Amino acid sequence: MRNFSETTITGAVLQRLQATPDPRVRHISEALVRHLHAFVREIEPTQEEWSAAIGFLTRTGHLCTQTRQEFILLSDALGVSMLVDAINHRKPAGATETTVLGPFYVEGPREFADGADISGGMTGTPMLVRGMVAGTDGRPLRGAVLDVWHADEGGFYDVQHAPEARAGRGRLLTDAEGRFRFWSVRPSSYPIPHDGTVGAMLAAQGRHPYRPAHVHFIVTAAGFEPLVTHLFIAGDPYLDSDVVFGVKDSIIVDLVDHPPGTAPDGRVVPEAYVELSYDFRLAPAGPCPAPPGGPA
Amino acid sequence: MRNFSETTITGAVLQRLQATPDPRVRHISEALVRHLHAFVREIEPTQEEWSAAIGFLTRTGHLCTQTRQEFILLSDALGVSMLVDAINHRKPAGATETTVLGPFYVEGPREFADGADISGGMTGTPMLVRGMVAGTDGRPLRGAVLDVWHADEGGFYDVQHAPEARAGRGRLLTDAEGRFRFWSVRPSSYPIPHDGTVGAMLAAQGRHPYRPAHVHFIVTAAGFEPLVTHLFIAGDPYLDSDVVFGVKDSIIVDLVDHPPGTAPDGRVVPEAYVELSYDFRLAPAGPCPAPPGGPA
Ligand SMILES: [Fe+2]
Ligand SMILES: [Fe+2]
Repeated sequence: MRNFSETTITGAVLQRLQATPDPRVRHISEALVRHLHAFVREIEPTQEEWSAAIGFLTRTGHLCTQTRQEFILLSDALGVSMLVDAINHRKPAGATETTVLGPFYVEGPREFADGADISGGMTGTPMLVRGMVAGTDGRPLRGAVLDVWHADEGGFYDVQHAPEARAGRGRLLTDAEGRFRFWSVRPSSYPIPHDGTVGAMLAAQGRHPYRPAHVHFIVTAAGFEPLVTHLFIAGDPYLDSDVVFGVKDSIIVDLVDHPPGTAPDGRVVPEAYVELSYDFRLAPAGPCPAPPGGPA
Repeated sequence: MRNFSETTITGAVLQRLQATPDPRVRHISEALVRHLHAFVREIEPTQEEWSAAIGFLTRTGHLCTQTRQEFILLSDALGVSMLVDAINHRKPAGATETTVLGPFYVEGPREFADGADISGGMTGTPMLVRGMVAGTDGRPLRGAVLDVWHADEGGFYDVQHAPEARAGRGRLLTDAEGRFRFWSVRPSSYPIPHDGTVGAMLAAQGRHPYRPAHVHFIVTAAGFEPLVTHLFIAGDPYLDSDVVFGVKDSIIVDLVDHPPGTAPDGRVVPEAYVELSYDFRLAPAGPCPAPPGGPA
């Protein structure tokens, strides 16, 4: 148990992990060591590069606050979040597709009544959002919970303006027919926060930091798998180059333009507005289906 | 560039990296994505495990201060630091072996005269440290710089008692014959800081957090590769289970016990003391030799 060399160190660390009591912790620890060491062996970092990596991780940690999560940004920008999402959502056909959570969800959202305006003073084109929540069998789900959040027309979330600000976010319930409806403003495409370590990484990789315009949803209902997804707005210039690799065709929605007047929900709107309609389909809760390519 | 699945996401991220201007940044980025995605594919983390990983990294970052470096501890405890060390020190035979830097080096050490006491009030058994610095050809190196730091008899570094404290550390120069000599106190084996995320990881892995007793050295001389190493004290119970995998036989030293009296350097010592002697051999600076197994 001494004199570890370039060729023996990995085996030595793996041997040290044999006493790990929990089998899942042991598997994760062993896999981490094998893949991390393989990465180091491939790139052969200089001591200065190793120091730079330590500094990068340290600065990334220091950037994390109650309202900014730089490690989630890093996971997103490296495609890790979408991979984890895909692994966890080998869903039965017919369920709404998932995408990343992102770093801007805030716990404890304010609850709004059906049809309410959740914009909280955000400026921008009024937007009516409506649709329904059903199971994959098409049966509407009453009392399903929708957590919603989105950026403003400038591309900023409320918490980026001020940590305590709450606007363009809230919680709604579906009615007896599984329907939901709320008003807010049309969000813009936006750069993920790029004044930190993730921004520096993207710049070094020659990548832009933009995400196409979208509205975030977490949809939950008793007996169904929670759905974490976005609705993307059709026509956005960044749909094919989302910095976090989150776009799927099935969750891109065409906005319908409306002139000023009486909206479908009876609200009188004195200016032009847009309408976003989507019906969510939730997968029944239960054991995971087999991975793709496995037995049906 | 949409609809990435479990099987296509890695290729999509790699394709996005093709615009990376610097070839080294591109190689590191590509290797990071490949190995990180392979790790995720192997362990198939749940969303909760992914969140736990984000939380672990965030807390690790928040633990880092001017005098505590939790990410270096993490690198050390996973054997990454020793692997990076080995990759960077494919040295010609005859050079002193290297080991990890560790998290307790402090920039700008105080300079001491030859023969000085650097203990700074640390309590413990007096220890005379002496030896010489030479090249691999045996020629003594005058004016070589030794940065030294070590724990006290309780197993704590100065900065762990108080961030501004400076004791048991300093800088010395070799004399015209390449010799150095200083007094301090005998260090104890110690646990790496284990009240943070790395401590939690070690506990989950059923590992103790101890390092065998040692004195850190960085030895530098013009025209030679800097040497980052320790001298370990023979007989320590943790020599075969160093939590950071840093022990090599060639840098374990037998302490010589002395009764009270006049030490070899003429100092009168009123209590029993120990003596640690070691001769360092530095590799000439220059292009790296071929990796082991490669052409000579
Ligand atoms: Fe977003
Ligand atoms: Fe140490």
